[in-house]
Amino acid sequence: MTASQLNVSKEEVRVTEAALRRVVAAIFEKLGISPEDAAEGADVLVMSDLRGVDSHGVSNMFRAYVKGYQGGRLNPAPGWKVVRETAATAVIDAEQRLGIIIGPRAMRLAVEKAKISGVGTVTVRNGGHFGAIGHHAMIAAEQDMIGLCMVGVGGFDLSVLPTFSAEPMFGTNPIAVAAPADKEAPFLFDAATSVIAGNKIRSAIRAGEQLLPGWVADKQGRPLAAATPVQDRYQFYLLPLGGTRELGSHKGYGLSMTAEILSSLLSGGLPNMLDANSVSKAHFTAYNISAFTDPADFKKDLDRMLAKLRTAKPVEGQARVYYPGLLESEELRERRSHGIPLHKEVIQWFENITTELGLPGLDG
Amino acid sequence: MTASQLNVSKEEVRVTEAALRRVVAAIFEKLGISPEDAAEGADVLVMSDLRGVDSHGVSNMFRAYVKGYQGGRLNPAPGWKVVRETAATAVIDAEQRLGIIIGPRAMRLAVEKAKISGVGTVTVRNGGHFGAIGHHAMIAAEQDMIGLCMVGVGGFDLSVLPTFSAEPMFGTNPIAVAAPADKEAPFLFDAATSVIAGNKIRSAIRAGEQLLPGWVADKQGRPLAAATPVQDRYQFYLLPLGGTRELGSHKGYGLSMTAEILSSLLSGGLPNMLDANSVSKAHFTAYNISAFTDPADFKKDLDRMLAKLRTAKPVEGQARVYYPGLLESEELRERRSHGIPLHKEVIQWFENITTELGLPGLDG
Repeated sequence: MTASQLNVSKEEVRVTEAALRRVVAAIFEKLGISPEDAAEGADVLVMSDLRGVDSHGVSNMFRAYVKGYQGGRLNPAPGWKVVRETAATAVIDAEQRLGIIIGPRAMRLAVEKAKISGVGTVTVRNGGHFGAIGHHAMIAAEQDMIGLCMVGVGGFDLSVLPTFSAEPMFGTNPIAVAAPADKEAPFLFDAATSVIAGNKIRSAIRAGEQLLPGWVADKQGRPLAAATPVQDRYQFYLLPLGGTRELGSHKGYGLSMTAEILSSLLSGGLPNMLDANSVSKAHFTAYNISAFTDPADFKKDLDRMLAKLRTAKPVEGQARVYYPGLLESEELRERRSHGIPLHKEVIQWFENITTELGLPGLDG
Repeated sequence: MTASQLNVSKEEVRVTEAALRRVVAAIFEKLGISPEDAAEGADVLVMSDLRGVDSHGVSNMFRAYVKGYQGGRLNPAPGWKVVRETAATAVIDAEQRLGIIIGPRAMRLAVEKAKISGVGTVTVRNGGHFGAIGHHAMIAAEQDMIGLCMVGVGGFDLSVLPTFSAEPMFGTNPIAVAAPADKEAPFLFDAATSVIAGNKIRSAIRAGEQLLPGWVADKQGRPLAAATPVQDRYQFYLLPLGGTRELGSHKGYGLSMTAEILSSLLSGGLPNMLDANSVSKAHFTAYNISAFTDPADFKKDLDRMLAKLRTAKPVEGQARVYYPGLLESEELRERRSHGIPLHKEVIQWFENITTELGLPGLDG
């Protein structure tokens, strides 16, 4: 279920997919990135916006990426270094290249290996932000494979508390899985292993809303027992999925550790809890369905599951039951037809940056 | 964190590991299972008890297995059928053989494939109950690999509600991950993707305790808003991890779907939501650490993570921070030294069944 599904307010302007791809790629190129890499990065960002994952599209993270290149923290040069490789596996040192540019290539390498071996796993260390990792998982689904992607989040303050701990030890360490259906939308799951992601606090601040009990803990590690106003993104720590021990926070904690182990340690990198300067690490596995069963049968059976979930009787007060990926697919169709709604403040940022870099703007 | 860590009450008797292994294996053999398979099944059950996972040891599931063999629902014959295979993958048709006997072999096959290819995945369809799947994941960890295991639970009533649904669509679909450390206990995560597992309701009934808000929903799909007494295991539906949409139940739901897709669909089986007669399906992946990085470095880095978590400052009211696998390891040491505590009622069951089958008892 995505952050969007809102009607476009007076504060928003619709921008076409084509215009957004053109301008984002042009900005990347101007920052020294090769045309091929720039198109890749623009694809990840614009697809996230098209799917309604606004938190990971051009409005939010893109600005951080531009700052990263301008400040020299991200390396614009193309290429990567495969530091270890077998028939079905590889380890990539991203050497400070942006994760949204490396991520799709890492998944495509996993897919190539899975074509030969039935399953392929690629881990990446020293990466910049990997974006909405469901996008990378989808690359496998588009090849009749199941894609699995995880990130050991680095480069930010630690924010997620282990169960019973007063000290944060993890980033929001997301897990994404995608699988191909036949007529239904693909299965697409992409979620932080914390109860909420940091951007939900930012949204609450912007909207003047309170944080709900169970979402976060105070700086002593005590989960909030009542709705609480918030002024500052870093006023609270995040809790692992489950929230409290009684409601299963040890499970969210274990999943966060899982992402850290399969990404950070399995790529020869370090988790941020051991190295404050460590940037992001990621894990990509592609399961080639044809190695296990007939892909046509698989997709038909997944269709039957998804249709059954979509048409399940909803609980009172709810109109529909969704499956992971359904809203993203509906949003994709709607935004491809009618444009991507961007806040006026974001439009203004695009005007400023294109002027600064001497590029045509969104309406150019 | 395990169900146990209790002192032995007057209602319990300590039994040695050796006696329990001997009697469980003898019962399996008497039911027509080969000595090798009987020892494998006894190993899974007794290791679960030693680790303090009492819900999946001899006290609970073993009786169901015995009934399954006696009633002809489980096939005691040895062997399995590999129905599809590549360098790094295999699909097994378990043909109604017990999952706790097939599971370790499936993981060992994944390990063999990972020795050659770097990663190996084996899926299993038509299996009986797979037991505490952390045990299977540990088989990979003992070979310097990371083990991943999931189950699409079948053979039981559907009990877990998708987010917003009034109809249950899943079993408790667990996920387990194990990874080797150096001096610390291995990382061992094993959890249902529901807030609580069904046996927690059984425990509450036995102890006369109430169910906590957020644990379950009524038969209309409405999460309980207050603590509620319980008389019957099937009085309520289970909720996906997160509990409510606000607290992230769509994440638990997505993880449940992930286990179903990677187990049921990827083995050519069907989820129970599409076939009420479908039994359990499972997924086993082994990642060979040496294909990705130096195993000695990996284990030292994991040690540093685990030690940092173990010594983290606890939140007020808690004495310690645990990592997944720590309590299981402590329990293993304690129970290997002092015996496994079994309830008198379980001891009585063992007396009855060994008498019925003409076998020496636990003290024989």
